[in-house]
Amino acid sequence: MIPVAISDAPVEDFIPHGNIEVMRGLRHFIVENVRTARRFLKKCDREIDIDAITFYELNGHTDRNILPTLLEPLRKGEPMGMMSEAGCPGVADPGAEVARIAQAEGLRVIPLAGPSSILMSLMASGFNGQGFAFNGYLPIENDRRVKVIKELEARAYKHDMTQIFIETPYRNARFLEFLVATLRPSTLLSVASGLTDPQLESAVTLPVARWRSRSLAMDKTPAIFLISKP
Amino acid sequence: MIPVAISDAPVEDFIPHGNIEVMRGLRHFIVENVRTARRFLKKCDREIDIDAITFYELNGHTDRNILPTLLEPLRKGEPMGMMSEAGCPGVADPGAEVARIAQAEGLRVIPLAGPSSILMSLMASGFNGQGFAFNGYLPIENDRRVKVIKELEARAYKHDMTQIFIETPYRNARFLEFLVATLRPSTLLSVASGLTDPQLESAVTLPVARWRSRSLAMDKTPAIFLISKP
Repeated sequence: MIPVAISDAPVEDFIPHGNIEVMRGLRHFIVENVRTARRFLKKCDREIDIDAITFYELNGHTDRNILPTLLEPLRKGEPMGMMSEAGCPGVADPGAEVARIAQAEGLRVIPLAGPSSILMSLMASGFNGQGFAFNGYLPIENDRRVKVIKELEARAYKHDMTQIFIETPYRNARFLEFLVATLRPSTLLSVASGLTDPQLESAVTLPVARWRSRSLAMDKTPAIFLISKP
Repeated sequence: MIPVAISDAPVEDFIPHGNIEVMRGLRHFIVENVRTARRFLKKCDREIDIDAITFYELNGHTDRNILPTLLEPLRKGEPMGMMSEAGCPGVADPGAEVARIAQAEGLRVIPLAGPSSILMSLMASGFNGQGFAFNGYLPIENDRRVKVIKELEARAYKHDMTQIFIETPYRNARFLEFLVATLRPSTLLSVASGLTDPQLESAVTLPVARWRSRSLAMDKTPAIFLISKP
């Protein structure tokens, strides 16, 4: 399980050298996006022989019935890498399903260290890290979205659990307006974006009331949103 | 916010080179344990001038009233590093409280990439990563512990949220027995330990019923426990 870049900064800034050594030794990769994966491998090691590598694509469009067949090389003793389109595989992509099949068959699954925007945004937020929940995307439909965010806010207060969620980048600005309109003014909201990119990175925590006057210049940058009781 | 080692393997295996560059430029570190921090810095860079560095200890014994004073160098424009005893700072240590003060004062907080046993165990488990909760330590008192673990199991089923928790290493074996006796036999339990250490690392997912016959040879190794619905 190989974390990949979450920004365009040089890979050695945020990818351990040991990961690059591991990648060099692999001839089979299960990847969320073949083009992204090739580019990442080339950035990690210019000398890498991409043509000697077989890629197996696994994403939202992949027929779930073929997932067990993806592990065929591993069953034969050939190590395989798994890479998401950004960050850690198996977290916000279908990679977990294949890891689950591997575990069920007793195949060894090894996770490597690397950038996780979820964990990194949590570190920067100043929020409780001894109890936190990642909730993925909120529902799109407005009434349900309001209901879910109010439930998460209630959990943040009642259990002192930091609540984390994401939105697709082009909706970030509208999503912030929605959060400001829906959450209590004193609830703390942290927004992290552009992590690992020295030019873009930002991780700011403010009470909801103070986000009212701020706009997000980040409609193309993936962002993470976190809430906490004051 | 600087992640540190979670095993004794060579640091370049799991720490990005960029982090080491950042550490080289810092003269002030807030750390959970000064001895561990010194050793980690020396392992990252043998040439580092430890005597030129000022360490500010922050752990469970630190008087909470002095926390704002720890940030004095940062207020004067001197960058500071924050390091936990293992893994990511601000997650399972008091570092979050200082990050929170920094955020409240508008000081910039930058998280670096690195090993997080929480995220890495999640990647390896094959469990749902689109919804997960880290719950820290469970209560020690038996009745409350049973109640909490049953609540977490119920949440894992009802919301399809992977539930993650930890135990102090010397209690790992007894904790596994407790989990096997308390959880439903078909619930999936994943146990990860020794992550980033090629000799020790293990991340195994099995139904609770199948953990019955297994014992954990890991009474000194920090472990992460994860549960999921089948």
